[in-house]
Amino acid sequence: MTRSDSLALPLGFRWSSAIAGIKASGRPDVAFAVADTPAIAAAMFTSNQLVAAPLTIGKQHLAATGNKVRAVLVNSGNANCATGPNGLDACQLSCRAAGEALGCVFDEVFPSSTGIIGVPFPTNKLIAAIPAAASALGSTAAHAEAFATAILTTDTKLKVAQASFAVGEKQVHLFGCCKGAGMIGPQVVPHATMLVYLFTDLAACAEHLQAMLNPAVEASFNSISIDGDMSTNDTVLLLASGASGVEAAPETAAAFQTALNEVCRSLAHAIIDDGEGVTHVVTLDISGAPTDADAKLIARTIATSPLCKTAWSSADPNWGRILAAAGRAGVVFDPANITLHIGGLPVFANGALAPAYNEAATHAAMLAREYAIALDLGAGAGRTSFLTCDLTHEYVSINADYST
Amino acid sequence: MTRSDSLALPLGFRWSSAIAGIKASGRPDVAFAVADTPAIAAAMFTSNQLVAAPLTIGKQHLAATGNKVRAVLVNSGNANCATGPNGLDACQLSCRAAGEALGCVFDEVFPSSTGIIGVPFPTNKLIAAIPAAASALGSTAAHAEAFATAILTTDTKLKVAQASFAVGEKQVHLFGCCKGAGMIGPQVVPHATMLVYLFTDLAACAEHLQAMLNPAVEASFNSISIDGDMSTNDTVLLLASGASGVEAAPETAAAFQTALNEVCRSLAHAIIDDGEGVTHVVTLDISGAPTDADAKLIARTIATSPLCKTAWSSADPNWGRILAAAGRAGVVFDPANITLHIGGLPVFANGALAPAYNEAATHAAMLAREYAIALDLGAGAGRTSFLTCDLTHEYVSINADYST
Repeated sequence: MTRSDSLALPLGFRWSSAIAGIKASGRPDVAFAVADTPAIAAAMFTSNQLVAAPLTIGKQHLAATGNKVRAVLVNSGNANCATGPNGLDACQLSCRAAGEALGCVFDEVFPSSTGIIGVPFPTNKLIAAIPAAASALGSTAAHAEAFATAILTTDTKLKVAQASFAVGEKQVHLFGCCKGAGMIGPQVVPHATMLVYLFTDLAACAEHLQAMLNPAVEASFNSISIDGDMSTNDTVLLLASGASGVEAAPETAAAFQTALNEVCRSLAHAIIDDGEGVTHVVTLDISGAPTDADAKLIARTIATSPLCKTAWSSADPNWGRILAAAGRAGVVFDPANITLHIGGLPVFANGALAPAYNEAATHAAMLAREYAIALDLGAGAGRTSFLTCDLTHEYVSINADYST
Repeated sequence: MTRSDSLALPLGFRWSSAIAGIKASGRPDVAFAVADTPAIAAAMFTSNQLVAAPLTIGKQHLAATGNKVRAVLVNSGNANCATGPNGLDACQLSCRAAGEALGCVFDEVFPSSTGIIGVPFPTNKLIAAIPAAASALGSTAAHAEAFATAILTTDTKLKVAQASFAVGEKQVHLFGCCKGAGMIGPQVVPHATMLVYLFTDLAACAEHLQAMLNPAVEASFNSISIDGDMSTNDTVLLLASGASGVEAAPETAAAFQTALNEVCRSLAHAIIDDGEGVTHVVTLDISGAPTDADAKLIARTIATSPLCKTAWSSADPNWGRILAAAGRAGVVFDPANITLHIGGLPVFANGALAPAYNEAATHAAMLAREYAIALDLGAGAGRTSFLTCDLTHEYVSINADYST
């Protein structure tokens, strides 16, 4: 991944941001992306029963156009969720206004919203900001960063990633950005994740894009948890402009899959690293499970255990909490066969404390901002790598701050 | 429930406590209960894959004796879990020593341990304390409270409950006590709960006792969550001495079931009320679910949502978090049909904010230490009542305190 000051952006897209006044802070709260000609889309959505209006409308638009997208219109500061029929109207009116500004049909506009749930949507504010967003469009790194900045809510850092590869004389580019620092616990395969936008100039059909997006998301955004709370607005959108002139033939597709995996993994890591109140990033390497799904279930149970997460916040090698969480995940294993390592150091083996266990050394390893916990169940070939974080006073402060 | 200073205790039992020096604090850490003649037992255990040694031994002893128990030997300060073969040996040696002190066979002694996981068990300390525990046995309220006190760990309050009823000229008594303030999230039916001891002088067979214990536990200890973390040592033990001279004939059994339900509910409430760092006790009344199990799944998902729990800590009516948690529980419902009340006040109906919603009044209702959240899904007749609590800075402090 290159740094954002040297972004090699995909051809065929322009980006901008604007200030609609939806965020009380007065920061940019409208992100706008436009494809020169209709881009081909692949998408994944939350599986929450409570679904925000823009997801309902966005799915309808993709179905109506055969996955063709001219523009992405995102607002931050209001999730347009649990807002009833008014919320759907607001979303449709906004898409119509964006379509008129660009000269395209309304259902080629893909809408997204993020922010507080259940507050009536300020439709007029968003519509009033569209002309400014349209006139600010451009294709430089600064424009892409403006888009990536305007989607943020409680995030403290910009989250962008990029990859490129050559096919003969031509270059294929992939640029991605995302937001999310809380209510992060995408849980249901294959349609659950968060607000992620991926832009490429590869030429590919919608089915092929979707087939490449699914595994990339499964190993990245579907393998992380900050607080286990799956959002109502989770969306991943991959847009392909085709402007590189490179078709997704088999070898090119393999290179693109690698680039897509890398970009998704980098963005997923950025989300955990910027999680609310996070002071430690923990990789859970679960192996020896009956199946991969079992390994993920155990990882998710450990990743959402308040007792594990609070212990990590103080670098406390209270490994009994890790084993107890694994033991309640609903996966059958024999404690006599498991091994546990923290930061590469032996902790538990043969049903008891490992002879080489060194509490002081383990505590020292856990003082690092980032380390791995490796649990082998000795019960099969299933495995997963799952990214999570600690639970701190700061997390409680952020989420207990009653200021609506 | 009567107060503990007027405990009407079941006949046929004696209780005591002793100091073995397992707790660093020097507080009583051995609880001993003895039946004058072998009592009939019913029991339920954690379903965690990681099971403490005393649970393995306790199940063996109940099977070997046909559910007859002369003595209960509990230590606090060390869970004797993840301690390998040495832990099993320690438990067996302790039971043998207790049997010798009482003149009964070792497998009529039921062992329990609670405390830290994975620390080698101090067998000699426990065995050395048994004579003192045996000589201190008595049948007064002070003796029963000594037992109930010695089982505590991070609890800040004594947790006892009592019920009595008359059958003709005779009285049947039920006394219960429990411990638990963290790692509280019993999850699997019918064999998951925490450290609970129930003593009665009713005469009943083991199968009948078990049949009465199961529903009482399901509606109490299996319907609460502090942190969602199911323990490795959860145990409920019901002992019946028969010393009242009252048999569990149908009408008597109904009265006993009511008393048992009340005592279990009272103890379960005491656990949540004394939960680590708790400042608000919240009852989740879920109705209109497809099944009772669905209602419980939704309740448990809300009860373990960090976003919901932190909002409760500041009396923040951030009801979107409640709906979002319900929506990710894996139960199908239509948001247009649900209604939500907090503290009896209308919040959400017909897919949007209730017209009568009053944020200030809802906030005021949530300032109470105890209140109810009622969520009707409009999707069936399934319901549950589930008890939980908020997540506070104090919870993080207690569990992030690295001092092993």
